[in-house]
Amino acid sequence: MRLWEQNIRRVKPYTPGEQPAGKNLVKLNTNENPYPPSPLVEKALKEMDPADFRKYPDPSSGVLVQALSEFYGVEPERIFVGVGSDDVLGMAFLTFFNSERPILFPSVTYSFYPVWADLFRIPWETVAVDEQMRISPEDFKRENGGVIFPNPNAPTGLALPLAQMEEIVAANQDSVVIVDEAYIDFGGDSAMELTRSYENLLVVQTFSKSRAMAGMRIGFAVGNPVLIRALNDVKYSYNSYTMSLAAQKLGAAAVKDREYFEESRRKIIKTREEAKKSLAELGFTFPDSQTNFIFAKHMRAKAEPMFQALKEAGIYVRYFKTTGLEDWLRISIGTDEEMEKLYRFLKGYLPRQ
Amino acid sequence: MRLWEQNIRRVKPYTPGEQPAGKNLVKLNTNENPYPPSPLVEKALKEMDPADFRKYPDPSSGVLVQALSEFYGVEPERIFVGVGSDDVLGMAFLTFFNSERPILFPSVTYSFYPVWADLFRIPWETVAVDEQMRISPEDFKRENGGVIFPNPNAPTGLALPLAQMEEIVAANQDSVVIVDEAYIDFGGDSAMELTRSYENLLVVQTFSKSRAMAGMRIGFAVGNPVLIRALNDVKYSYNSYTMSLAAQKLGAAAVKDREYFEESRRKIIKTREEAKKSLAELGFTFPDSQTNFIFAKHMRAKAEPMFQALKEAGIYVRYFKTTGLEDWLRISIGTDEEMEKLYRFLKGYLPRQ
Repeated sequence: MRLWEQNIRRVKPYTPGEQPAGKNLVKLNTNENPYPPSPLVEKALKEMDPADFRKYPDPSSGVLVQALSEFYGVEPERIFVGVGSDDVLGMAFLTFFNSERPILFPSVTYSFYPVWADLFRIPWETVAVDEQMRISPEDFKRENGGVIFPNPNAPTGLALPLAQMEEIVAANQDSVVIVDEAYIDFGGDSAMELTRSYENLLVVQTFSKSRAMAGMRIGFAVGNPVLIRALNDVKYSYNSYTMSLAAQKLGAAAVKDREYFEESRRKIIKTREEAKKSLAELGFTFPDSQTNFIFAKHMRAKAEPMFQALKEAGIYVRYFKTTGLEDWLRISIGTDEEMEKLYRFLKGYLPRQ
Repeated sequence: MRLWEQNIRRVKPYTPGEQPAGKNLVKLNTNENPYPPSPLVEKALKEMDPADFRKYPDPSSGVLVQALSEFYGVEPERIFVGVGSDDVLGMAFLTFFNSERPILFPSVTYSFYPVWADLFRIPWETVAVDEQMRISPEDFKRENGGVIFPNPNAPTGLALPLAQMEEIVAANQDSVVIVDEAYIDFGGDSAMELTRSYENLLVVQTFSKSRAMAGMRIGFAVGNPVLIRALNDVKYSYNSYTMSLAAQKLGAAAVKDREYFEESRRKIIKTREEAKKSLAELGFTFPDSQTNFIFAKHMRAKAEPMFQALKEAGIYVRYFKTTGLEDWLRISIGTDEEMEKLYRFLKGYLPRQ
C-alpha cells in the first residue's frame, strides 16, 4: 500500500436499492411514491428562468423554509433544510453526537445510522427490538450520547404512539433525541408538536416519499432555534450553498399544494391496507405497517429466491442480506395496477399449501 | 448551558458574500459569471419531465460523469461529482486528510480550508506567501498529512506555472495533493494532465464560474481511480443521492456546449484585461489576476469606506475583514456595461491626486 493510501478514511458504504432502467418495470424496491409530484411543481419548472442559474442560490433557502413554515405552522427559525433527509441526518450526527458516550438506536432500523456513526467516529450501541420487532421506550433509559430512531421504524413499518415517544424524549433530556419521520405521512403520530415542549428534540422529514420528490433531494428538520442554529453553523462551515435554486423553487411548489398531498397519501394508504389483505391471503406475515412499504416474510417460500424470481419477472422489491433479516422482503406500495402485477406473479410462483 | 448543548460541535462558520435582491444592482461580489448558461441548458430544462422527480436519481450521476468524460477525454472512473466544488473539497478533506501530521495550504487562500480542517479535526499549518502574495513550491517541501492550494489562488488571482505545480506534487508523493481549480478556465495551466503521472494528485473544478451554473451546485474532481473510489465510498456512506436529477441533466447539457463555453470565457478574459488597464488608471494596484476577479488596493483610498460607498451606490464588491487583507477589495469581472458603471462611480468617488 502506498503511503498516502494509509490516510484514506476506511468506510463501509451503504448500498442503495437498485435503480434499474427500462420501461414496464414494476419498481417496488426504494419506497418511492408511485404518483408524480403536484402539478404546481410542473408549473414552477416551466416558470424557471435558466439565466438565474448563473448566480449562487439563497444560502438560507428562504423560499423553501417559508413554504414549510406556512404548511406546518412553525416559525422559520425552527426549520433546517438539506439535500434529502440523509444530508439532514448526517449533519445532525456531526453536529449533536459529540459525546464520549455511545448513541443509541434500535437493532433493526435504517442501515445508514451505524455508517454515519462510524464515519464521524461516534461510539454507538443498539437497543434490541422484541420478537415482534417492536421498540420499547424502557430500553432507551440508559446513559447515552444521543438517541435516534425512525418513527415509523424502517424496515419494520411499525409506529410508536406519541406517549411512548414522549417517554423516550423526557427520559433523555441531557441528550439530543432525533426522530426520523421519513414515513410519517403514511401513518403514526408526528413528534413535531413535542418540539415545543422539549428543546432537545429534533424531528426530521423528507420530500422523497409522500411529496414524490426523491429526484430533487430535499429533506428538513424541525426543532428549537438553538438546535437549528447549530445545524446551520455546521452546514455553513461545510458548504454554504447546498440547496440548488431548482430544489428550493420546486420544493416550495410541492409544499404549497396541500390538497394534492392529502389526496396522494390517502391513495397510497388505501393501496397499502388492501396489500395487507392480499399478501396475507398469499401466505405472508408482516408487522402492521404504517408506511408506504410492507416488510413481509412468507410462511413457506424462501425470501432470496423469491426476490430473484420477481426481479427476473421485472418486479423489483428489496432484499436485505443482513443477519436476522434473511427471511424478509421489503415491498414498496405502488399503484393499484403495479400491486396487481405483483400478486398475479406471486400467485403463480408460490407453492400451494 | 444545558447538558445536551455541551455536545454540540462548535464551528466558526464561513460567511458567504451577500446575495442582495433587487434590480439594477451591479453584483461583483461572488465571482459569478455575468452571462447566462448555454442555451442547451434551457433546452434540457424544457425537456425535463416533472413525473421523473418521484424516483431517486442515479446515484452515480452517470449522465453528468459521461459528459465530463467526453469533454476532458478522461475515463469515467477517474471522475467524481458533488454538490458544488465545496462539497467535493469537503468530502476530499474527510476522505484523504486522516494523518496526525498537519495538512499544508497557503497563508492567503480560500477561507474554507481552515474551516473544513477544524470541522473534521484535521491538524493544519499555513505556508506563507511572499510580499507579492506568491506561493513558492520550496515551502511545501516539509512533512505533512496532505497539501491543498487553489490554482489560480484566491483571492490573489495568481497562477502557478505547471512545472512548479509538478514540483509540489513530485515532492509530496506520500500525501494526497489537491489542486483547487475553481478559476482555471480564466487563466493558468490545469494540473489535470498530471493526474496520469501522479496517482496522489486530485484536481477539483466547479460549474459555478466558467459554466455559469452556481445556482445548480455542481463540482467535480479528476484523479486516479483509487482516489475516486475512496471519495465515492465516503460519499455513499454519507448520502448516496447527492446530485439531483435536475443537476445531473442540466449539468450535462452545460458541458456539451463547448463553443458557448469558449466564447463566454473569452469574453470574460477580455473584460478582465481591460479592467486591469482601467483600474490601474484609477490608481489601483493588484496582482496579475488569471481569474474572473481582480484583488485590488488603492494607493490613496481606504478599502472599507470605498466598499461601503460602492454598496450604497448599488455596486457590490467583496471586502474581507481579515488581518492582512484590510486594504483590499475583490472585484468580480462583470459585463462590460457593469464594469463601466464601476469605473464611472470610482472616478467620482476617488480622491484626485
